[in-house]
Amino acid sequence: MIESLALEGTSKIVLLVLDGLGDLPDPAHRGQTPLEAARTPNLDALARTSALGRLTPVAPGITPGSGPGHLGLFGYDPVTHLVGRGVLEALGAGIDLQHGDVAARANFCTVDASGVVTDRRAGRIGSDVCARLVEKLRAGTGRIDDVEIVLQAGKGHRFVVVLRGPGLGGAVSDADPHKEGKPTPKSHPLEAGEPNQKTARVVNAFALRADQVLEAEHPANGVLMRGLSERPKFDGYRERFKLRAAAIAAYPMYRGVASLAGMDLFVPAGEGAAEAFAVAAQQWASHDYVFIHVKGTDMAGEDGDFEAKVRVIEAVDQALPALQALGPDVLCVTGDHSTPVPMRGHSWHPVPVLLNSKVCFPDAHARFHETSCRTGSLGELASKDLIAVLLANAGRLDKYGA
Amino acid sequence: MIESLALEGTSKIVLLVLDGLGDLPDPAHRGQTPLEAARTPNLDALARTSALGRLTPVAPGITPGSGPGHLGLFGYDPVTHLVGRGVLEALGAGIDLQHGDVAARANFCTVDASGVVTDRRAGRIGSDVCARLVEKLRAGTGRIDDVEIVLQAGKGHRFVVVLRGPGLGGAVSDADPHKEGKPTPKSHPLEAGEPNQKTARVVNAFALRADQVLEAEHPANGVLMRGLSERPKFDGYRERFKLRAAAIAAYPMYRGVASLAGMDLFVPAGEGAAEAFAVAAQQWASHDYVFIHVKGTDMAGEDGDFEAKVRVIEAVDQALPALQALGPDVLCVTGDHSTPVPMRGHSWHPVPVLLNSKVCFPDAHARFHETSCRTGSLGELASKDLIAVLLANAGRLDKYGA
Repeated sequence: MIESLALEGTSKIVLLVLDGLGDLPDPAHRGQTPLEAARTPNLDALARTSALGRLTPVAPGITPGSGPGHLGLFGYDPVTHLVGRGVLEALGAGIDLQHGDVAARANFCTVDASGVVTDRRAGRIGSDVCARLVEKLRAGTGRIDDVEIVLQAGKGHRFVVVLRGPGLGGAVSDADPHKEGKPTPKSHPLEAGEPNQKTARVVNAFALRADQVLEAEHPANGVLMRGLSERPKFDGYRERFKLRAAAIAAYPMYRGVASLAGMDLFVPAGEGAAEAFAVAAQQWASHDYVFIHVKGTDMAGEDGDFEAKVRVIEAVDQALPALQALGPDVLCVTGDHSTPVPMRGHSWHPVPVLLNSKVCFPDAHARFHETSCRTGSLGELASKDLIAVLLANAGRLDKYGA
Repeated sequence: MIESLALEGTSKIVLLVLDGLGDLPDPAHRGQTPLEAARTPNLDALARTSALGRLTPVAPGITPGSGPGHLGLFGYDPVTHLVGRGVLEALGAGIDLQHGDVAARANFCTVDASGVVTDRRAGRIGSDVCARLVEKLRAGTGRIDDVEIVLQAGKGHRFVVVLRGPGLGGAVSDADPHKEGKPTPKSHPLEAGEPNQKTARVVNAFALRADQVLEAEHPANGVLMRGLSERPKFDGYRERFKLRAAAIAAYPMYRGVASLAGMDLFVPAGEGAAEAFAVAAQQWASHDYVFIHVKGTDMAGEDGDFEAKVRVIEAVDQALPALQALGPDVLCVTGDHSTPVPMRGHSWHPVPVLLNSKVCFPDAHARFHETSCRTGSLGELASKDLIAVLLANAGRLDKYGA
C-alpha cells in the first residue's frame, strides 16, 4: 500500500540506528539500562518534543540477526524478504554483490586421506594463514567455465566465495557435512531448473580444484561451503518510496543490507557518530533520506560492557547537534534490535524509538529510554511499519481512499 | 517461523492459566477488579521482578470460547486452527478422541407423528433421563457397518455422538432443523469425497435407528445432531517447539484442547491450584513445559460472584510458593480470556499477563492487575504469539537470520 501512496517531496528524513540499542535494567548499575544511565542532554531535549514508542523487529519473541533487523527498519518485511546466509556474509565482507551473484560462507577444514572431515575449522588457523590460503586458491582456481570465482578472506578459518556469471541459481545444498567424521557431500540442486544445476556443478568443481590446490597444506587442506544463496532483488527506495536514500555506515554489513534497498553507500572517516554526521552533511543536498548506522552500542552489548554502551550513547548525544543543525524534517533514533548487556547478545526485547517532526505527537517525556517509550504516542510498531510513519511525518504519503 | 527456530534445551516453562482472569472495575467494590481487590502477597512480590503485559486472545473485540482461548495460548492461531463444535463438546465430555473420529453435539427432541420436530429440547428432560436414554441407544444402535458409535450423556437433553471407524470425513451438514415446526433434515456432505459421503450415510442411519429405539419414549422420541466435525490433526508441542508438555486440568475440556497439542494429560486430585501444583511437582522431571488450568476464576465470573473470584485468586496466590519452589525458568500467569463479573460471561477485553524469567524486562510494578499490565514491558501481544516469548525467555529460540 505504501508504494502507491508515496509522494515526491523536498522534505528530508534521517534514520539514526544505534545498533542493539535496547537493553535490560542492570542491578549493578542502580537498576538502570545504559540509555537511562547515560548523560544525554541533547536527546533529553529532543525527547520533550518527540513521539516515543517501541519497535518489534520481526515478531514477538523473535531475536533478529543484523539482516532481518535492518531490512525491517528499511520497510522490507523480514519474513518475506529473505536474505541468504552466504549473501549476508558476502555483504558483511564488503563484497559489492551484483544481481545474479551466488554467495557462500566458506571454511577451511582438515580432511584425512579417505576424504573424511576431521576438523571443520582446520585447527582454527589464524587470519594471516587464511589470507595466504585464499590468495593461493585465487591463483589456482580462477574461473570455472564462464563463472568468475570471487574470494575474500575473513577471520580465522572463515572466508567468502562468490560465484559470478550468467544463469546461476541460489537453491543448492551445502557442500559441508556440518559435523566431523563424515566426508564433504557434493552440492545438489534444492529446486528444479538449470540455474541451480549449474551452481551445483560450479560449486563441486571449485571444491575439487580447491582440494588439489590445498593438497600439500596442513591443517587447512579442504574447503566447506554453506548458506549458498543468490543476491535477492528487492525494489529499491527510489521506486518504492520516491526517496533518494543514502546509507552511512562504517561496517560493510550494514552498507551491504542498505545496498539491497538501493541506497547510495558512504563510508565515514571513523566509527563514531560525529564522523557519520559529517558525511550526512556532505550528502544532505543530494539525498532525501539518510540512514546512519552506529555499531558501538551493539558491540558493547555483545561484550557485556555496560560502561562502554553508556559511552557510545553519550558520544552520539554530544555529536547530535551537528545532525540537528542540518534541519531534518523527520529525525528518528532507534535500534535494529536489543543487545542487552547481561545477555551479551541480540535479543527479542522491543526496541525504543524516538521520532521528531513538526507533526508528531510530542509526548513531553523528559527522557528517551526503554521505560518512557512504553507509554509513548507512537505506541507499539513492527519495525517494517516504521517507514510509513517516517514518510507520513515527512508529508510524503498521500491519503488512502477518498 | 518459530518451529524452525525452536531449540532443544533443559529449561522449564510453566503456563498458569486462571480461566477468565481479566475483569472490569466494580463500583460496588471500591471500583476495583477482583485481581486488584485480592490479597496476593506472592503475586505482588513476583510482579516486582516480572514483565507485565496484555494478551488479545483472538482479535480485538472478539470474545473467545474455551477452545480458541486456549489454542491461542498454546501457540495455535485460533483463526486458522479450527476445532469443530462437536469435537469441542466431545473433548469437554472427556471422550478420548482419536485421529479420524467425527464428533457431534446431540440433543434429544420431540417429534410428532408426521416427523416434525415440536420441541428441540424434548421438554428439557433431566440428566438422569438423558443417561437412561443414552444407555438404551447404546444397546440398540451399536455399530453401523464398520463404524463404532460412541455415546456419552450430558446435562439435560444434551449428549455427544462420536463416529469411530475408517474413512470418515467431518464436512457434513447438521441433522437438525434448528427450529421447531420442521422435520429433521438428513445430513449431506458439504464437500466432495467419499469420506464425507460415508459420514453422512452413518449419521442418517444412526438417526433412523435412534428413532426406532426411542419410538415408545415421550417426550424424547427423536435425536438431533449438529456441529459434526473431525478431530483436527495439529502438529504437537514436541514436533513444533521441541517441548515435552504436560497439561494439568481438573476439567476435561481443557485436557481435551491440550490433547490436540499433543500434551500429556494429568488430572489433579481437586479443582484447586494446590492440587494442580502437586501434580506439577510429580511431573517436573519428565516435562519441559507445564500448562496448569484453574477453572474457578471463570466460574465465579460466570456466576457474577466478585467475592468468589477474589477467593480463587487468593487461593492461587497462597499455593504459588509451591510452584515457584520447583524453580521454573519461565513462569507465566495469565488467562485464556476475560470473564468480567458484571457481564457474567466471557468477554473480549484484553487479558493481563505476567512473565517472570532471568531475562525478562522487570517492570518493578508493585502489583499484577489489569491496569498495571497496561504499561508493562511485554506490551500488547496476541495470545498466539505468547509461546514465542515464553520460548525466547527460556533460551529455546535461535536467532532469526544472520
